[in-house]
Amino acid sequence: MLRTIQDGFERFGFLPIETPVFEYSDILLNKSGGETEKQVYFLQSTGALKEGKAPELALRFDLTVPLARYVAQYENQLAFPFRRYQIQRVYRGERNQRGRYREFYQCDIDVVGKDTLPLAYDAEMPAVIAEVFRALDFGPFTIRINNRKLLNGLLRGAGADTPEKRAAALREIDKLEKAGEAKVREGLAAPEVAMAADAIDRLLKFLSVGKGEPRAVLGELGKLDAADELFKTGVAELTTVVEQVAALGVPAGTVAIDLSIARGLDYYTGTIYETVLNDFPGIGSVCSGGRYDDLAGLYTKSKLPGVGLSIGLTRLFFQLQEAGRIKPVDPPAPVYVTIVDPELAPECRAMATELRRAGINTELAAEAGKLGKQLKYCEKVGIRFAVIFAKQEKERGAVQLKDLKANAQRDVQRGELAAAIRAALAD
Amino acid sequence: MLRTIQDGFERFGFLPIETPVFEYSDILLNKSGGETEKQVYFLQSTGALKEGKAPELALRFDLTVPLARYVAQYENQLAFPFRRYQIQRVYRGERNQRGRYREFYQCDIDVVGKDTLPLAYDAEMPAVIAEVFRALDFGPFTIRINNRKLLNGLLRGAGADTPEKRAAALREIDKLEKAGEAKVREGLAAPEVAMAADAIDRLLKFLSVGKGEPRAVLGELGKLDAADELFKTGVAELTTVVEQVAALGVPAGTVAIDLSIARGLDYYTGTIYETVLNDFPGIGSVCSGGRYDDLAGLYTKSKLPGVGLSIGLTRLFFQLQEAGRIKPVDPPAPVYVTIVDPELAPECRAMATELRRAGINTELAAEAGKLGKQLKYCEKVGIRFAVIFAKQEKERGAVQLKDLKANAQRDVQRGELAAAIRAALAD
Repeated sequence: MLRTIQDGFERFGFLPIETPVFEYSDILLNKSGGETEKQVYFLQSTGALKEGKAPELALRFDLTVPLARYVAQYENQLAFPFRRYQIQRVYRGERNQRGRYREFYQCDIDVVGKDTLPLAYDAEMPAVIAEVFRALDFGPFTIRINNRKLLNGLLRGAGADTPEKRAAALREIDKLEKAGEAKVREGLAAPEVAMAADAIDRLLKFLSVGKGEPRAVLGELGKLDAADELFKTGVAELTTVVEQVAALGVPAGTVAIDLSIARGLDYYTGTIYETVLNDFPGIGSVCSGGRYDDLAGLYTKSKLPGVGLSIGLTRLFFQLQEAGRIKPVDPPAPVYVTIVDPELAPECRAMATELRRAGINTELAAEAGKLGKQLKYCEKVGIRFAVIFAKQEKERGAVQLKDLKANAQRDVQRGELAAAIRAALAD
Repeated sequence: MLRTIQDGFERFGFLPIETPVFEYSDILLNKSGGETEKQVYFLQSTGALKEGKAPELALRFDLTVPLARYVAQYENQLAFPFRRYQIQRVYRGERNQRGRYREFYQCDIDVVGKDTLPLAYDAEMPAVIAEVFRALDFGPFTIRINNRKLLNGLLRGAGADTPEKRAAALREIDKLEKAGEAKVREGLAAPEVAMAADAIDRLLKFLSVGKGEPRAVLGELGKLDAADELFKTGVAELTTVVEQVAALGVPAGTVAIDLSIARGLDYYTGTIYETVLNDFPGIGSVCSGGRYDDLAGLYTKSKLPGVGLSIGLTRLFFQLQEAGRIKPVDPPAPVYVTIVDPELAPECRAMATELRRAGINTELAAEAGKLGKQLKYCEKVGIRFAVIFAKQEKERGAVQLKDLKANAQRDVQRGELAAAIRAALAD
């Protein structure tokens, strides 16, 4: 899965970077505060621990903060837009329990611009997601797209003109599915939000547009008479993104607009994404991300807008494994050269070397032993082909190639062994 | 370099494993004590830190202790001999200074047996080293082999019959190069070791055999009239290993016996290895390892002998970089599809998608812009081919393929673009 994701990211020309596992605690905690701070692992060398010093270093808890630090630090050396991928483990000081990991893989891509960043990169993200999840081969998937400006604009236009009011309104909206429309109406009219009745009508109408095929949703959105400029910008951006996603060849039916997705994180300011596997809705979003206005405001004066996404690989892996959808991985070597006759050991060793030089990963028996035991080892490890060269084979002037998967064997010429195995593997 | 090393390890059928970045402190510090303990990074979550608890977890400082814990833990599920490779970062609580790293890559392979482990695996290690360093392409290299039993046996036969005496004798021997023979004679005769004069003669004669082409050194060793059984076993093992290394096709001239290498670590008990790059002797050993009688005695009652080696990749990388021997890495995408004319943007996007589907990593301009600026970006990032499709090309019914490295361009048919790029890349 790691290799498939990496290949997908590289297909689009993203550059690999790795950053240290630790960052200065100050930098790491600058941004997040609150919930995340409780989950950080602090680091102390033996010496520092004895001296009772406050920990200077902590383990990264995501790949976004290290990226921000990295881009700010190397700003003058990087070519912008800076398009990087990063596949590394991140750490959370969690209790070890089902579905919660203290160490897990994240696979991130981000495009970071200097001052500005074309909307085309917002459209590139779904194209990358589509390529990666097509290659991962876990069945059909849906990339849900939304734009923060829609709801923010609508709320602003509806009189929720402070961040506090908008937050309160969002809390009410979140109750829609469970509590129903009447309850939400009540909450939005209450003093905390104090929204006018016609604004509430517009808002609920907007939310009822819901989700679906992009063109249909955009058509419904066009019918809403929302005057707010931010809302209009959001619709225009969403339209452009959806058009360019199609131009990049992402299959229709893979992309949906979903006005209900919000992504908790405050720093998203435009396009947002979630991805679900259609056959495994219970897993939730397997790949999320979005556009942010300013990546590294805490570390540099430059304005660095970006757009990115993240795959939480470890959680995905274990949930798919539980669902029986992870196939056992073949061992690196598909071939095992047995040694049966001690006198022929040198020839067997030379054969293994020949196969390796021909680019075929090959394991070699250590010394002459019973064939049955060697074949049993192959089966346990999952090696498909066994090469057998005993006295009978030498007399016949051939090598026996045994296919353990097909439970079949045949003679091949010594000089054609590598070619025969390569052909069988390609089959 | 990581990929090359990984491919080399897999060529011999080693299985990849990864272990968590942290282990329980108890387990990590059980084995090492002393110097290493001072360099461990302890981990504490925010909560544990506030409660003033002693740290339960610490970052791994090598890949051997995690392997021992892993093999002991999964002993019943593993197929033995267990042949694994592991390429991960390790951590030392060092001051950050030249040549000292707090975080660095180690690339390890080990073969672990249950109860016994054939000597053939001792011979496999140099074969793997030879393959990896041939592929890394840093010029000629020498794999130095020795066997601990030689010196241990000789010392035992010479009357150094306690570990303390042998340690004291080794300290004296280490002075040989700097202090000269007379001084060492004096030290070995002193009460701490109390070696007899004729034993000292034999020892110094042994050390004077020195290093060189394996058969020559083995011949010299045969002439020494050492009666000690351990010494004789050592010579026999060394002979077998050298013969099998040759049988595995490791080029003569790549392998030398070097009786002076000792490897500080106490747990080596037989064959030991060091590897030097002939053009860079100052770097010291770039790949070291050896045979140990018992890997995981602290964690299991089973006897698990093993043999392994380790490449300290980070240090090697920076030293070769300083020597100007690290070539800049090409970016993942060799192709950049430019957009010059906004009206042709959709066709350019479709072209990028076509190339990607053909398996060619391709970066795409975000939007129409000046060609010069786009080509400058390609040069900065190191992208070799630019695809240009403006009005003139459309009128000609062709696509322009520009090779920035050769500073040459030519027209190709749209339908043949992928094939043309693939041919140019293979060239």
